[in-house]
Amino acid sequence: MSRPPRRPDGKPHAAPAHGKGRGAQRDARGEPLPFRAPSAEVVTLYGAHAVREALVSGRRKLLTLYATQTAAPRIADLARAAGLEPRIVDGRDLDRKLGEDSVHQGLLLEARPLAELDIADIENASGVVLVLDQVTDPHNVGAILRTAAAYAVDALVVTERHSPEFTGVLAKAASGALEHLPIVSVVNLARALEQLQDGGYSVVGLDSEGSASLETLTLSRPLALVLGAEGKGLRRLTRERCDVVARLDMPGKIRSLNVSNACAAALTILRLRAG
Amino acid sequence: MSRPPRRPDGKPHAAPAHGKGRGAQRDARGEPLPFRAPSAEVVTLYGAHAVREALVSGRRKLLTLYATQTAAPRIADLARAAGLEPRIVDGRDLDRKLGEDSVHQGLLLEARPLAELDIADIENASGVVLVLDQVTDPHNVGAILRTAAAYAVDALVVTERHSPEFTGVLAKAASGALEHLPIVSVVNLARALEQLQDGGYSVVGLDSEGSASLETLTLSRPLALVLGAEGKGLRRLTRERCDVVARLDMPGKIRSLNVSNACAAALTILRLRAG
Repeated sequence: MSRPPRRPDGKPHAAPAHGKGRGAQRDARGEPLPFRAPSAEVVTLYGAHAVREALVSGRRKLLTLYATQTAAPRIADLARAAGLEPRIVDGRDLDRKLGEDSVHQGLLLEARPLAELDIADIENASGVVLVLDQVTDPHNVGAILRTAAAYAVDALVVTERHSPEFTGVLAKAASGALEHLPIVSVVNLARALEQLQDGGYSVVGLDSEGSASLETLTLSRPLALVLGAEGKGLRRLTRERCDVVARLDMPGKIRSLNVSNACAAALTILRLRAG
Repeated sequence: MSRPPRRPDGKPHAAPAHGKGRGAQRDARGEPLPFRAPSAEVVTLYGAHAVREALVSGRRKLLTLYATQTAAPRIADLARAAGLEPRIVDGRDLDRKLGEDSVHQGLLLEARPLAELDIADIENASGVVLVLDQVTDPHNVGAILRTAAAYAVDALVVTERHSPEFTGVLAKAASGALEHLPIVSVVNLARALEQLQDGGYSVVGLDSEGSASLETLTLSRPLALVLGAEGKGLRRLTRERCDVVARLDMPGKIRSLNVSNACAAALTILRLRAG
């Protein structure tokens, strides 16, 4: 009977971060699940879009592809082209690993994180960079990544602290966008905005109390659009660094949007006003 | 020692829907939690925005307000004006009821559902109605409600089946918008679209494969904008009923948005083009 691989040092596998309080995760026969724990060195991608885009884009080192019997044929060609042979797993083991509510579509890919970039590495193509000031919810940041990639934003700038991990739930919500959008993670956001300004960017903060309307503001490019966390908004040092703080004008009784929806509305305004 | 109330018929409380497999929820001393199970007659609202808007708007019959010692003073005036006295609870009991990840901010309100409306009840004020064709994720539908209320959409039309419950997680994500946006729940969506057309509405479906660009399409009001579920899109009968199926033009490598982000982008386009 085959057993899952053990660690070379013979020690038990660490419990994955999201399995807190439940000890090491095990399959129906009580064997440890085969998957690697997520870490600084291992990103877990699941779901058809996230896995496909990672196989196609060729921007990461790929480690292991797991697929159910049903999903394997659907991914076989792309996997082969990427030099991987899917390892067949039981769908219920993916449920155990990822949670029953995750829509993994029978696919899980373990890979290395993408190369880290600096502000100086950002290429000015569309002329818009998106900056997140401590937005922490992985569903929201995933949706923001997807929208930013759809609107061909040049890069996403986030803070090293108080940002979600770019793996798992976030990668699923990003629906493959993680492979296309350069991400710059910075220690000091005010300093990063200053660097962008030194490079010719106007820095526009978004806040429901902003002094100007994004719809009517004179906008020059390149431009960095800064979004704050829901509830907290832009931090003081971030706000002070902005060239202007703008608001979305909305006619209804509710005055603020979900942060990913605010991002979609703002990028739509930028797109229409550039056209 | 005081005990939580029991059902008048002496039977045990049913386990809430989201506590599946864990039996009735209990507090630290093993007593059943005091909260009502959500049902067709009881809506659970939590979080500062959702609870405040329900207290202020006066559109529902309110049952019981629970607040932590810390949160109670912050809501006391609004509660009194609504004829309620907050019942003090332990924040950990709210965690147990709602899940540790829920941001309940020490507040939970039980209330009756809002009155049911028909297509004929929709008032044409902004001239835009939003229609969801079986969008099921409560976070997405909550964010859509919030954005629709911010853009002063006249009503949200959903299908009775394959729609989330308008309570709990959805109400939290809607951030109070549930109290402001009329919701019409219909059995047959194609028939509802036909009724809107009979009332003079143009029906515009949104789909990444749409034949026209929403940015350049000639739009007359009143207008019903129809969004389909992610992955599945508009159902065939829904699509056939639309006067036109439009797409969002996006320049990037990712070609589709999270459904709530697509909603925000589409409503932004409608707003800018009306101005």
